[in-house]
Parts: sequence; C-alpha cells; structure tokens
Amino acid sequence: MRDFSGDHQALSINTATVRKQARLDQIIDACARRDIRMICPWRDQVHAVGLGGIAAQLRAAGIELSGYCRGGFFPAADDAGLTAALEDNRRAIDEAAALGSPCLVLVVGSLPGALTGKAAYKDIQVARAQVLDGIEATLQHARQAKLPLAIEPLHPMQAAERACVNTLEQALDICDALDPEKSGALGVAVDVYHVWWDPKLAAQIARAGRERLFAFHVCDWLLGTRDLLNDRGMMGDGIIELQKIRGWLEAAGYRGPAEVEIFSEDWWARPLDDVLTTCIERHRSVV
Amino acid sequence: MRDFSGDHQALSINTATVRKQARLDQIIDACARRDIRMICPWRDQVHAVGLGGIAAQLRAAGIELSGYCRGGFFPAADDAGLTAALEDNRRAIDEAAALGSPCLVLVVGSLPGALTGKAAYKDIQVARAQVLDGIEATLQHARQAKLPLAIEPLHPMQAAERACVNTLEQALDICDALDPEKSGALGVAVDVYHVWWDPKLAAQIARAGRERLFAFHVCDWLLGTRDLLNDRGMMGDGIIELQKIRGWLEAAGYRGPAEVEIFSEDWWARPLDDVLTTCIERHRSVV
Repeated sequence: MRDFSGDHQALSINTATVRKQARLDQIIDACARRDIRMICPWRDQVHAVGLGGIAAQLRAAGIELSGYCRGGFFPAADDAGLTAALEDNRRAIDEAAALGSPCLVLVVGSLPGALTGKAAYKDIQVARAQVLDGIEATLQHARQAKLPLAIEPLHPMQAAERACVNTLEQALDICDALDPEKSGALGVAVDVYHVWWDPKLAAQIARAGRERLFAFHVCDWLLGTRDLLNDRGMMGDGIIELQKIRGWLEAAGYRGPAEVEIFSEDWWARPLDDVLTTCIERHRSVV
Repeated sequence: MRDFSGDHQALSINTATVRKQARLDQIIDACARRDIRMICPWRDQVHAVGLGGIAAQLRAAGIELSGYCRGGFFPAADDAGLTAALEDNRRAIDEAAALGSPCLVLVVGSLPGALTGKAAYKDIQVARAQVLDGIEATLQHARQAKLPLAIEPLHPMQAAERACVNTLEQALDICDALDPEKSGALGVAVDVYHVWWDPKLAAQIARAGRERLFAFHVCDWLLGTRDLLNDRGMMGDGIIELQKIRGWLEAAGYRGPAEVEIFSEDWWARPLDDVLTTCIERHRSVV
C-alpha cells in the first residue's frame, strides 16, 4: 500500500468541498499555492467561470483533473425528459474531455421529480431500467470521445432522490452488462461515504479490479449524523476505516488519487485556507 | 395476495408509533376499542406498566402480539459488556414468551458506544463477528423457550450506531449459518423502511421463504427526509411500493400481519386516536 504520510501527491480536492467559500478559479489558485496537483470540479462551478478560462488556468497551473462531476440523472417522466438527459450527458462528456478529465462521474438519478418533492412514479425498478438504457446510450458518445464513465453508487438514503444505484455490486453488474470486455470505457467511482457500510464491499472492490476502479472519494461518516446530505465529516472525524478501504482498492490494482469530497455545512462555514490545510493534514495522517 | 381493503384483521400496531402519546395500557385500550387485534410492544413500554399487568390486559382484550421489541445490541467493548448483552437478551426472550409473542425482534447493534457519540472501535467487521456470536449464543435459550428470533436488517444509514446487519441478504446469510435446517427458531423481520431501496429485495424475500419470514413492518419513506431516525412517513405518504413488497412476501408464503412502525416527531405530535384511525385507513387502502 502506498505511503501517503510524506507528501500529498495523491491528494485531489473535489471542489464541492469548498464551493461556498470561493469561485472555481479562486479554488484552483488556492490549490496551486499548496501544491495540490489534482481537483475534481463540478459543472456549475466551471460554467460560472467559463470552460475555456478554467481549462487555460488548469494548464498554466499544472493541475490535472481526477474526475468531472457530474453526468447522470437519466430517469425521466417522459420521452422529452429522457432525450434531454441524454443530450446533457453528451455535453458533460465534451466538457470533461475539454478539461482533460480521466472520467465523467455519473450520479445516475432516481425517481423523476423526487428531488423537488413530487415523484412522477414510485417504481424504482423503472428508474433502474431507465438508468441502464441511459448509460448504454451515453456510452456510445463516451467511447467516441475516449472519455470513460464512472458510475458512483450512492448511499441507500439517497435512493429516492439522487441515485437508484446503491451498491458497488449493482454498479458492477451494470458495467458487466454494458461493457463485458472491460474496455476501460465504463467503471465505478468508490466513495467511502456511500459504501463503507456494505458487508460485500471488500469482495466487490476485488471484483472491480483495476479495470473498473476509476475514482476513490474520501470523507468520513460522523456519529450522530444530522442531515442526509450535508453533514459529512472530515477524514478522521468519523468511523470509516479509510486506510483499510484504500488498502482493498490498492490490492485490486488502484493507483489513482484519494479525492476529498465533503458536503458539510460545517466545513463550508470555515475559511478556504483552513479547509485545504486540514485536507492535506488528514490525507497524510489518516487516508 | 390477500385483500386488505375490507377490514383490518391483518393490522398490527407497533406501539412505538404512539409511544409519546400514551402509556402501553392506554394504547392497548385504544387498540381494543378499534378492534385492532395485534400489537408489537417495546420492552421499555412494558416495563413502565409491568409485565404481569400487560399480559393480563392483553388476554382480557383478546389482543395478540405480532412480535416483541427488542433484543440485540450484541457488540460490546469488553467481555463484561458481551456477557451483559447476552443476559439481557435472555431476559427479553423470557418476557416475549410470557407475553405469548411469536418472536423476538433483534436490532443487532453495531459499534459499541456509537449511540452515545464515541465508538470503542471502528471495525464493523468485528461488530459483525460479535453479532454472529451473540445470536448463536442467544439461539440456545430461544430454542429452549420456543421463542423464535427475528433478525431485522436496518437501513445502512443506521449502520454505525444501531445495526451492522444492513441487508436482507446479510441477515439470511446469518440465518443459514446458524440455523441451516430452517428449524423455525431463526428468521427475519422485513421492515420496508430499511430495505425498500435494495436492488436484491425481491430475490432475497423469495430466498427467505415462509420459514424465515417472521414479521413485516410498514411505514413509508418520505421525499426530503429530514432526520435519519424520526422522520418516517405514514403508509401512502412516501414513495415505497407497499403492495408490491407485500406481494413478494405473500408469494414467498407469508401470511402474517402488516405491522405499522412509525418513528416520527410529526405523528408523535398528533392525538392517539387520529394516528390509529389513520393507520386503519391506510392499512386498508395502500398496504
């Protein structure tokens, strides 16, 4: 297993972690000052500054992407919605390619309308079928663009609103169905927050193997979690065995970065510098 | 599939649903007035009134138990804690037998101390091993008392604090390991709130079969859930496909009650009569 204690070469910052403190160009500058060499930006953050400007800034700073967030949200209530989702995913792929991202992270979506409080239907099996179809259709464009898709299983507490892919096993079943040859075009993003509880986690990481493991996201699960979405913990502040899980990924061949992605009202309320400094410290000490 | 629309013979009330409105003896009286024939009480509610008195009241009212809540919480930080947990489970079995319960529901526990904010250790695999050992040890007493144990997998968002058994598959694996002969001494409680999201739910219910399906708990998953513990919805107010899931249980041979278990600050704030009336209505219309 790689030793992270001596430096933070393997650290990536998912820029949602500090999205309330600064614009993306400011975040990139702050990362560059700390010799953070990788980020994973969100589309809205890129759009707010401009794709061309961000791409130029990244090149000038020598900062690379560990991923691009996000594609997905395939299920829809009607054909127009399904078509719009596919178009949006093609745009996301093109943006990811323009930024030199190694993959597009897919938060696949679930019951249409659920995020705004009213589901168009309740049948999660329908949503799962629409996700399978959506990924299959999107994969064609992704292959042409040579831009791999990383399915991110989300915690079951997000199953109604954000993702009907909720275990690594389920994500890998989709990969095997749509890319049985393990071409490198389709894989998974393993976020410890979403999967740490899974009794089959070790076995499914081994099953994934190097060919399917496109991203590794870290944060922590806090005891007494107060919110289903925005109460994630800084690495080391909760109960996830980060090094053990990283060990499983590395045993399967993963050699990529550990990407910090923390949705937290607490951490969004702290100064950008403090958050990045803490991420570096914890990356070296507990990841 | 049974028709629930004409009456509420198959309705059971888990008395935690109205635990803030009344004492257990008052709840039993209120159920009797509405011809609710089954309840599932919690130990603290029984203790607050007295086991003998509750047993006599139930006999007089002709109300039976659909289960008894709860045993479990096996993991501990040291041997004294493990021993105390086993002793407490034996007492729970004896109480359940005295009340004529068909089973003792097990919320198995997880990281010791996590419920009070400080985990004695982080390794959930250790907790799972302690749970397996604890159920095995408890099963001896359960067999002697002829009191079946029902393992309840809890939602993964409860994995740190309340239960390290988080899928029906995992619960059934434990059943198969400890009771391979399907003697009737060990099975599962299927609570839709905990398992509705599981892509393997239908297959695992079929796997369980009549011999393992000891209890069926209903409520609903609300869009925009605000709390990990106490924001469950009344049946019909959320997105769980209750009738579909009940159909899967019945196809596997289940013929027992549908037990309403709602932890909800909203429903605890309403009058006891209103809650019970609504449970009856929804049992007939959407369960």
